[in-house]
Amino acid sequence: MNLMYEGKSKKVYKLSDNEVILEFKDSATAFNAQKFEIFEGKGKLNAKFSAFFFNLLKENGVENHFLRVLDENKIICKNLEIIKLEVVIRNIATGSIVKRLGISEGFVFNEPLIEFFYKEDKLNDPLICKEHVKLLNLASEEEIEVIKNLSLKANDVLKQFFEKFNLRLVDIKFEFGKFENKIFLADEISPDIFRVWDENGNSYDKDVFRFNKGNLIEVYSALAKKINLI
Amino acid sequence: MNLMYEGKSKKVYKLSDNEVILEFKDSATAFNAQKFEIFEGKGKLNAKFSAFFFNLLKENGVENHFLRVLDENKIICKNLEIIKLEVVIRNIATGSIVKRLGISEGFVFNEPLIEFFYKEDKLNDPLICKEHVKLLNLASEEEIEVIKNLSLKANDVLKQFFEKFNLRLVDIKFEFGKFENKIFLADEISPDIFRVWDENGNSYDKDVFRFNKGNLIEVYSALAKKINLI
Repeated sequence: MNLMYEGKSKKVYKLSDNEVILEFKDSATAFNAQKFEIFEGKGKLNAKFSAFFFNLLKENGVENHFLRVLDENKIICKNLEIIKLEVVIRNIATGSIVKRLGISEGFVFNEPLIEFFYKEDKLNDPLICKEHVKLLNLASEEEIEVIKNLSLKANDVLKQFFEKFNLRLVDIKFEFGKFENKIFLADEISPDIFRVWDENGNSYDKDVFRFNKGNLIEVYSALAKKINLI
Repeated sequence: MNLMYEGKSKKVYKLSDNEVILEFKDSATAFNAQKFEIFEGKGKLNAKFSAFFFNLLKENGVENHFLRVLDENKIICKNLEIIKLEVVIRNIATGSIVKRLGISEGFVFNEPLIEFFYKEDKLNDPLICKEHVKLLNLASEEEIEVIKNLSLKANDVLKQFFEKFNLRLVDIKFEFGKFENKIFLADEISPDIFRVWDENGNSYDKDVFRFNKGNLIEVYSALAKKINLI
């Protein structure tokens, strides 16, 4: 297979001009890859989460790059031109924003807070504002609006989905790309990129790995069971 | 005198409910006060710069807190309710933005870049976006627009002023406050808060202190002479 790109948790292979294969690896990284570990079975779980959530989002009007499942740890997606932007939607304050702005841990935002980060590992993915997005030619004013709306819509769909299982979507990081000049939600949708808490504040996401709060595979599997995915 | 507040480079005394005295100190600080030095005469120079530039701005329609000179190192200003926001306008890339976003030193922006920072020493004055300004209740949507417009207008007036002396206004940091619910430009206007380069790229601002490029008093005095202030 024609490897186009290898990231921290995924490999991307070119299938055709229009399609790529996303292979989910078993590796977990945190704190800008300073923390690293292999968890057998993580790739399969995240492929399953992603296929499921991308379908859910599509059914609810959020256009995304997912096309079909290839095998247990691989999905086939549109071959997008990647936009070097990470969009974080926060429903509840935790993680970097608590340190950065002194907001109380667990503070529930009146409305989802949207933040942009410049996807550039060597700069440590810095926070940027609309003005910087334009300056760095990452997206036009119109495209920023599309990205914002897709992010808020996707957050809304996922938040409501989790609520049915007494789970709270704390925050989520989205990435986007372009295909034939149209913007699609990209990357993956898994506990690697969102935070979910149960009613007691227990984490069902990568925070268990970041902060040594439990076994990642057990926790990801428990989430998959809670939402009737396995 | 009734000291209300002492900052790194100024003291503020209450004169009446409506008026304060701004006393300019001789101290210079940089890198979040890690670097510190006393320069005899700095206070007088910055008081002179501030009175001059605030008058210039007022004549050009930029409402500000300056009322009148009290003595060599003190001016009298409106007693504003301070907005915990620093607004940086960049015409040319240097300093933090070069490191933060990997933009080339000396890059001339197509249009002035506007950045907001949360004025909170203990958080190290972090970059924030419009969404955070609202979240932190620093200013309303309407007030943000007023602040943006005043900042761009003030930058424009000062940029054009310096151009007459073959000097380039590189960037400038503004602060604002409210008086009877109206927004006024506040703080000071001096080489402590703007960067100015001559045609050969020599600095006439606090960078000479930050990076040991010359004697601060000599350089500030040279700037005052260039613009016929002394």
